[in-house]
Amino acid sequence: MAARTAPTVAPAKKTAARGEPIVKDVLAATLGELGRVGYHALRIDDVAARANVHKTTIYRRWPEKVDLVRDTLLSTFEDSFTPPDTGSLRGDLLAIARQVVALSTTGYGQALMRIAMTERTNGDLRHIIDSLRSAKEATRRQILERARARGELRPDVDGELLMSTMVGSIHHSVFSIGCAPRELALEPLVDLLLRGALVPAAPATPARL
Amino acid sequence: MAARTAPTVAPAKKTAARGEPIVKDVLAATLGELGRVGYHALRIDDVAARANVHKTTIYRRWPEKVDLVRDTLLSTFEDSFTPPDTGSLRGDLLAIARQVVALSTTGYGQALMRIAMTERTNGDLRHIIDSLRSAKEATRRQILERARARGELRPDVDGELLMSTMVGSIHHSVFSIGCAPRELALEPLVDLLLRGALVPAAPATPARL
Repeated sequence: MAARTAPTVAPAKKTAARGEPIVKDVLAATLGELGRVGYHALRIDDVAARANVHKTTIYRRWPEKVDLVRDTLLSTFEDSFTPPDTGSLRGDLLAIARQVVALSTTGYGQALMRIAMTERTNGDLRHIIDSLRSAKEATRRQILERARARGELRPDVDGELLMSTMVGSIHHSVFSIGCAPRELALEPLVDLLLRGALVPAAPATPARL
Repeated sequence: MAARTAPTVAPAKKTAARGEPIVKDVLAATLGELGRVGYHALRIDDVAARANVHKTTIYRRWPEKVDLVRDTLLSTFEDSFTPPDTGSLRGDLLAIARQVVALSTTGYGQALMRIAMTERTNGDLRHIIDSLRSAKEATRRQILERARARGELRPDVDGELLMSTMVGSIHHSVFSIGCAPRELALEPLVDLLLRGALVPAAPATPARL
């Protein structure tokens, strides 16, 4: 994977505005509509009705639909990802796996996946999604660096591949196979990724035992 | 995962009918439309136009849309999955990974994923998809059984978890992240799953060395 520039999420202005109840209501309504109909079919009228505000209130602050959707996804993102620090790679991976599962059951997670899966061709959306993903990857990179510092990770293992395999397979189980989140076997998944499926090569037999 | 009943795919009648050019054309057109608009929005008129046949020809053989879609997906399935037998688990997993990637670039693979991701709530479709998945899993189980017989798989590893993690993470990379199939690092993925990410526990030090 090519080097990525540092993600720039969450401009200060938005954060200040989030405190206002009306903004919170509009963003929550937008999230609900994104989960329900996706980006392409999302209508400001429906967001306004859901948030119980007049649509001019929305247009005044967010002249374009993409602005509203960007603010919605970025503001929700800030609350959703805190990198765990349990002291072991296994503990951290399990914590992330649980975060991913928990997120997949929220309107935010479902809206994000719906957009990522079906509406990536829209350039604006793609840009938003890619910057969310970069921000997420940056937080996860800290976990890998700590694991390397503790000597846990094999030197030849690509840490990002480890993360993306775990998270991708959970997403696939939930969103494509339709597994109930509580039925996912997260510990066996993490142990498979950490220890591998092969019978380990026999250690060299001590001579003349 | 609960035990599943053996999949019953591909009734004899359909196989016989597949030889007819008009049937092939209609199934190919249906596949194209499924990839383009999905199941819900699929219209027999569009299939007829794409296959260059009269729509009554389609209705005569497939009275309901679900019949047409079932025949389309099942007949394509038969051609798409042949379990590899390379003599090693690593070789077999790599072969499956390559099959999955190749499939993801076809109209069939894209139609299937589109349906699985966005239209699972339709009961008829869900039934079709689940029986395709069961059939695929049955072929893959053979690979795991051979690996166990060769003593390659750790006894405590869930072989289906191994398969579903590999396939799920490839699907996720292609369909959600939007990776170009040729950029996927399949060998590192397989090696991660086989050998694990952790530095192996040090073998017991030979006494008094």
